[in-house]
Amino acid sequence: MTQPRTATTFPPPVQEARRWLDGVVFPPERLLINVSQAAPTAPPPAPMREAMAEAILTEPEAHLYGPTLGLPALRAEVAEQWRAAYHGEIAEAEVAITSGCNQAFAAAIATLCAEGDEVILPTPWYFNHKMWLDMSGVRTVALPAGSGLLPDPDAARALITPRTRAIALVTPNNPAGVEYPAELVGAFYDLAQEHGLALIVDETYRDFDSRTGAPHDLFSRHGWQDTLIQLYSFSKAYRLTGHRVGAIIASKARLGEVEKFLDTVTICPNQLGQRGALWGMQNLSQWLAGERAEILARRAAIEAEFPRLEAQGWHLLGLGAYFAYMAHPFELASDALAQELVRQQSILCLPGTMFRPKGDASGAQELRIAFANVDAAGVKTLFDRLEKTRA
Amino acid sequence: MTQPRTATTFPPPVQEARRWLDGVVFPPERLLINVSQAAPTAPPPAPMREAMAEAILTEPEAHLYGPTLGLPALRAEVAEQWRAAYHGEIAEAEVAITSGCNQAFAAAIATLCAEGDEVILPTPWYFNHKMWLDMSGVRTVALPAGSGLLPDPDAARALITPRTRAIALVTPNNPAGVEYPAELVGAFYDLAQEHGLALIVDETYRDFDSRTGAPHDLFSRHGWQDTLIQLYSFSKAYRLTGHRVGAIIASKARLGEVEKFLDTVTICPNQLGQRGALWGMQNLSQWLAGERAEILARRAAIEAEFPRLEAQGWHLLGLGAYFAYMAHPFELASDALAQELVRQQSILCLPGTMFRPKGDASGAQELRIAFANVDAAGVKTLFDRLEKTRA
Repeated sequence: MTQPRTATTFPPPVQEARRWLDGVVFPPERLLINVSQAAPTAPPPAPMREAMAEAILTEPEAHLYGPTLGLPALRAEVAEQWRAAYHGEIAEAEVAITSGCNQAFAAAIATLCAEGDEVILPTPWYFNHKMWLDMSGVRTVALPAGSGLLPDPDAARALITPRTRAIALVTPNNPAGVEYPAELVGAFYDLAQEHGLALIVDETYRDFDSRTGAPHDLFSRHGWQDTLIQLYSFSKAYRLTGHRVGAIIASKARLGEVEKFLDTVTICPNQLGQRGALWGMQNLSQWLAGERAEILARRAAIEAEFPRLEAQGWHLLGLGAYFAYMAHPFELASDALAQELVRQQSILCLPGTMFRPKGDASGAQELRIAFANVDAAGVKTLFDRLEKTRA
Repeated sequence: MTQPRTATTFPPPVQEARRWLDGVVFPPERLLINVSQAAPTAPPPAPMREAMAEAILTEPEAHLYGPTLGLPALRAEVAEQWRAAYHGEIAEAEVAITSGCNQAFAAAIATLCAEGDEVILPTPWYFNHKMWLDMSGVRTVALPAGSGLLPDPDAARALITPRTRAIALVTPNNPAGVEYPAELVGAFYDLAQEHGLALIVDETYRDFDSRTGAPHDLFSRHGWQDTLIQLYSFSKAYRLTGHRVGAIIASKARLGEVEKFLDTVTICPNQLGQRGALWGMQNLSQWLAGERAEILARRAAIEAEFPRLEAQGWHLLGLGAYFAYMAHPFELASDALAQELVRQQSILCLPGTMFRPKGDASGAQELRIAFANVDAAGVKTLFDRLEKTRA
């Protein structure tokens, strides 16, 4: 008897890590620093909350089923802002709204793969991608990232088989924080196109990219719709994690297939979150620029603090988006170390083992620090504690 | 090359039917009567909208990620009300909240089935169930409902194979409107238990059941958790269709598996919809009783009007929940007839062919009228038009 789909994958890592907190009492002088999850911990700014409350009170449609592929005005707004940001042709009909970016990935895979097909993911990978591929009966082919935690298109080429359907990149990267250079993303596009594969590019953290201008030129390429599937999340930029709003940008024909999946899994994205996202896109560009500046300041604080860890044998492998990805100097494997960090230093972070296939030994040496919620003072405290860590 | 998952199923029927309206101009004296979808068309009552707006303005957590399996207070409330309603033992840990009831079905199937497994669905079926099974690589085994559109447990027994994993019932039924007697549901439970299968019972329309008291005794049976998976929707009762809130009631162990699926597909149900559902459960029981009375009044209006159609050769096959399921007297197949009804009578309803497997000829004679949004005067108009229909 074969295993049911959920039995083919592992429990959600974020929840597993949260259980490490069970029964641990943190002394008042050393309260928990939670750098396990990449998520805002504050609500959207007041004017946006007021606009959302107004919609609840006065817009009947905010409570009713809407189109499966999302609110037309939000689809149009994404298309318009994307055309400006990526210097490309993107039609409203090439944008669909999803119940969060994870669902966008799930929908994309459903349009691409059958049982036994293969998708190439650079490692370290985003674990929810791996989980969905498992549950879809798709074999995940690991592409170990090379120098600077950047994946190598030539190494990817060697992994392509007749069953390969897609390559999925996350840039800026989760968990490694690395911003993929435009030329690298372009090289993966060329590779995918040459082999008739889809290139999935998850840009959940695009709003916090340290670079200015378009992060890649894919949308300006003629016929991008035949190769590219881009994923986006409104959660981080507009603090909408609790509302579940993401997007998928792909050909109109593919979105017709996506519609089957979304209709069956959630019928439509929730109406209020979509209205919040639209209001945010239309009114918060200045505010978002400030949010980005703050994240970049926190990132700079990590860079400034890192030398004292480096002196103890730590290495900063990647830094960007919401994440610092680092190698620790201890014998202890990262999954045990992460639990020790909870008890010894009141730090909750995720071990590299959660982002790599079983049997990939490098994860044991790695930790992911999701620093987005920690201000500059907090970064200093975090590094004080990491510096004192003995294992 | 095998087909990707979405290519194995059909486009969403509700959207397909909506396209029949494209370009049709309805004369002012004969405006559209849309009885295609089962959904409230008004927002929740004002005090509930005010409570939701208040949460948006004052509860930061209403904007942040929450537990994958749902808001603890809502899970506890469902458990408590269910214990009272079903006279059974149901723990908070045996309730999970989903992004709508379709997602609850999808999650249940992911915990039960692998590629090539089988699930038995009575026909006419709910098309989103069929679509999800298709996209999951699960073979749907049709169990043609018999007299009174009730499925027969003995006929189901004959369909069980070593690959069968579950039988899924919808009661009150969509599309047929039939309320399954408690003994029938109990007999399916016995059958499932005897064969080690899951019995999925989708009770989306439970709040509009014409019977009083528990609609079945399954939750009072010892060890129900080994067999029963119940699905529920907050959408209809509390007019929350646009907020996407459903529930799954099952063993704690199964919900651990459900958590993998939900985490990967949506991370968590949206926070505001859950707060609305909780407020509704705690404050709207009187109001909901009135809503139910109104639906039962509309149902009675259909019963009262039906004889004049009967005189023309129509038959009422099932009536209940939000639905009248009827056989028409025309030669024209129902999918063509439904489109003719749009043009000729300004009625949008779904043909029986959408609720049955290809090759099942009975669908050609059937129409589903989702009457929930049509008041008594509207029912009269609807029947005036059906009576005048020529095809």
